[in-house]
Amino acid sequence: MLQLSKFPFKTLKTVPGWSDNKWTWLLLQAGYIRQELAWAYNYLHYGVKTLEKIKQIVREELNSIWAIEILMSSFSPKESWLKTWRWDSVDVLFKVEWSGNKQYALNPTHEEVVTPLMQEFIQSYKDLDNCQVYQFQTKFRNETRAKSGVLRGREFIMKDLYSFHKNQEELDIYFEKAHGAYNRIFDRLWIWKDTLYTFASGWVFSKYSYEFQTILEIGEDNVYVCEKCWQAHNNEIVEETFKCVECWSNEYKIIKTSETWNIFKLSTKFSNAFGLKYADEKWIQNEIVMWCYGIGISRIMWVIAEKFADEKWLVWPENIAPFSHYLIIIWDNKQKALEFAKKLENEWKEVIIDDRDIWFWQKASDADLLGIPYRIVISDKTIEKWWYEIKARNSDEVKILTF
Amino acid sequence: MLQLSKFPFKTLKTVPGWSDNKWTWLLLQAGYIRQELAWAYNYLHYGVKTLEKIKQIVREELNSIWAIEILMSSFSPKESWLKTWRWDSVDVLFKVEWSGNKQYALNPTHEEVVTPLMQEFIQSYKDLDNCQVYQFQTKFRNETRAKSGVLRGREFIMKDLYSFHKNQEELDIYFEKAHGAYNRIFDRLWIWKDTLYTFASGWVFSKYSYEFQTILEIGEDNVYVCEKCWQAHNNEIVEETFKCVECWSNEYKIIKTSETWNIFKLSTKFSNAFGLKYADEKWIQNEIVMWCYGIGISRIMWVIAEKFADEKWLVWPENIAPFSHYLIIIWDNKQKALEFAKKLENEWKEVIIDDRDIWFWQKASDADLLGIPYRIVISDKTIEKWWYEIKARNSDEVKILTF
Repeated sequence: MLQLSKFPFKTLKTVPGWSDNKWTWLLLQAGYIRQELAWAYNYLHYGVKTLEKIKQIVREELNSIWAIEILMSSFSPKESWLKTWRWDSVDVLFKVEWSGNKQYALNPTHEEVVTPLMQEFIQSYKDLDNCQVYQFQTKFRNETRAKSGVLRGREFIMKDLYSFHKNQEELDIYFEKAHGAYNRIFDRLWIWKDTLYTFASGWVFSKYSYEFQTILEIGEDNVYVCEKCWQAHNNEIVEETFKCVECWSNEYKIIKTSETWNIFKLSTKFSNAFGLKYADEKWIQNEIVMWCYGIGISRIMWVIAEKFADEKWLVWPENIAPFSHYLIIIWDNKQKALEFAKKLENEWKEVIIDDRDIWFWQKASDADLLGIPYRIVISDKTIEKWWYEIKARNSDEVKILTF
Repeated sequence: MLQLSKFPFKTLKTVPGWSDNKWTWLLLQAGYIRQELAWAYNYLHYGVKTLEKIKQIVREELNSIWAIEILMSSFSPKESWLKTWRWDSVDVLFKVEWSGNKQYALNPTHEEVVTPLMQEFIQSYKDLDNCQVYQFQTKFRNETRAKSGVLRGREFIMKDLYSFHKNQEELDIYFEKAHGAYNRIFDRLWIWKDTLYTFASGWVFSKYSYEFQTILEIGEDNVYVCEKCWQAHNNEIVEETFKCVECWSNEYKIIKTSETWNIFKLSTKFSNAFGLKYADEKWIQNEIVMWCYGIGISRIMWVIAEKFADEKWLVWPENIAPFSHYLIIIWDNKQKALEFAKKLENEWKEVIIDDRDIWFWQKASDADLLGIPYRIVISDKTIEKWWYEIKARNSDEVKILTF
C-alpha cells in the first residue's frame, strides 16, 4: 500500500520537451523514469514495480519450459572475447581497465560467459536432455546512435535464455516450446495480437528463422506484411520483389515495428570456440548447437506504454500496472480509507491511497496520468451509505459498489 | 518445484581447492556460485534463489519504514563526480569511455546519482517529511586487494538507502526507525544474536555512530568488546587504551567480524555539492542532511553460509534457504512423488525432487551439502502405508509422518 502523503515523488504538470518521443515523455511526466544520461535511465518507484511485473510473467513462463534462472556477472575476461574473435569486432563492447592494467569486457550479451560456465556441467549426451538457463541482467552497449528512449540504450535490462542441444532436431523441439512460452508471455502482456511472428533469414541452418515484432508507430524496424494472409517478413528476406513465403502473394504493406523478441542462432560458433563438446553413447565427441532467446524487459515497458496510452496519458494492462487501484479520499476520515485499502489488499489488489492535501481534480488527473487500471473514490457522501465509486481507466462508466 | 532429473547443474564431489576460504568452497561445491573472475561471480540457480530471499526480507522491512524502492543506473556522468571532488579521489572508481571520448563512472555507490535525482522533488520543508529511497543494485569497485570471496569484490549486490532530512534531530528520529528495521532484518536472517551493534566514530556530528558487525571467523574487521557489559567498539574509537563507552571498564577482547551494515553520515557533503537546499516556512533556504544506509546483499549470503555451516556442509536458516524441502524418491512411482510435492507447494513449501537415477546415499549427501532445511524420503515401504520420513538438516532425528 502506497500512501501518497508519504511519497517523495511527484508527477509533472507538463510534458517535458526534451525527449525524442511521446511515450518517453509520458513515463517521465508520470514519474516512472528519469534520464541519467543519454540512453541510461533511473527507474523511479512506479517504473521498478512495472519492470518487476514484466519480469515475473516472463519468469513464470520460462520456468514452465524448464529453463533455469541464474545470474551472470557484468564483467568478463578479455581472453573469452578473444576466443570468439569478438574483442575487436563487436563495436558496442565497453572495455574496462582494472587496476594492474588488465582489460575486461562489460558484457553486452553473455555468450562468452555462459558457454564456459556450462562447459563444466556438460560432458555426455545425458547432460543435454534439458540444458537451458536464463537470467535477467543489465546489458551494457556502447551504441553510437540512440533511438526512442530505451528502444536502443547503453544500459538496459534483458532476459536472455541460452539453450544447448545435441543437434538441430532437438533444438527445433525446444524452439517450439519456447515459441509457446513466448506466445503465453505476450498474451499475458496483452500485446499478443499486435505482435507479428515474423519470418527472417534462416542463414545456413534452415530456410527461415523467426522474430516477434510488435507493431509500434515509433518502432525501429519495418516488416513486410502480406496483404492476403497477413504473414510478416523482415527486410532480410524481402529481396528485390516481395513474395509471401506462405501464400506466394506479392501484395504487401510495410508496418513499423519494434523487435520485442529475438533469437540468435548461435549454432556451434560459441561452443566450438570454447571447445565445448559432448560424448555420445559410443564416447565419440560431438559438436553442440546453441541458441539464444532474448526479451528486452525495459524495452517491453516502453512498448506497452506506447501501445496502450490513450490520446492523453498512460493506460496499463492490469497484469503489469505498478498498482491495480488508485484510491482517492475526499474527506477527512483517513482511518476508514486505510481499512478499506487493507481489505482490498487482502483480496490481492495493490493500492495507492491518495491522501494528499490537494484538490480532487488533481488526484483524479494523476490517477489517469499514471494509468492505474481502477480509480476508486470515497467521500463523506458515499461513506455514509457504505458505498464507493469505481471507474476503470479505459472506460467512462462510474459504478457504485458497496464495501 | 525443481526436478533434478531436468536440472543442468551438479554438485562437486570434492571441495575445489582454489578459493581463499572454506565457505566459498562450500558455495562452489554445492553449486550456488561460480567464479567468473577474481572477485566477480556468477550465481547459479541456488545462489539466485538465496539472494532473492535475502532481498525480499530487506525489502519488506524497509517498506515498513516508508523507504521507497527505486533502481538507479550503473553509469553516471563525470561531471557529477567532479562536483563532489570524487572523480580523482575515489581510487576504486571504474572509469569508462563512451564512443565520442566522453568519460563516465561505473557507480561504486550512488550519492552522485541520488542527490541530483531527488533535487527535482525537494523544494520546501514539506517535501522532507518522508524522503528516503533505496535500491538493490550491482556495485562496481576497482578494489586492488581481494578478500574472502565477495566480502570485498569488484562486482557485488548492495542495498543502499539514502535519506534526506531538514536537520540532525529529524535524521536521528529516522535513524532509530532504520535501526529497528535493521534489527528485524537481522532477526529474520537469524544473525541478530551474533551481530554486534558497534560504536564507531561520530565524526563532527555526534559523539558516536554505529555499525552492525557480524561475528565471523574470516571477517575483515576487529571489534573491541567490553568484557563487562559486552558493548562493541570499532577500532576508530579505541585509542591508546581501551575504555568502554557504556560502563567505563577497561577489560576487552578482540573479536573478528564482518561489517554487514554500515551507515555513512553524508551530512551536507553531497547536498551542498549539488546545491540541494529546502525552503523553510519563511522561504529561507536551508541545508539538507543526508545519510546512507547500506547492506551488502551478496556479502550477507556469504556471512550466513559461514555462520550456519556445520563441520561438513552448508546449513541454511529456513527463511533464506533456496528451497525448504528436499524430496528423495527411492522407488519408481515418480507420479506419486510429484503429487506429494504439489501438495507441499500448496502449503507454501518450496520443493526439490531428487528423481535422478543415482544411489540413495548420493541424494542424501547432496541434500546435506546444499543445506536444505528438511529432507523427505519416500520409498516403496513407506508409500504402502502412506507414510513419509522427514529429517531436519540440523538434527539427526528422523520422524515418520502420514501424507
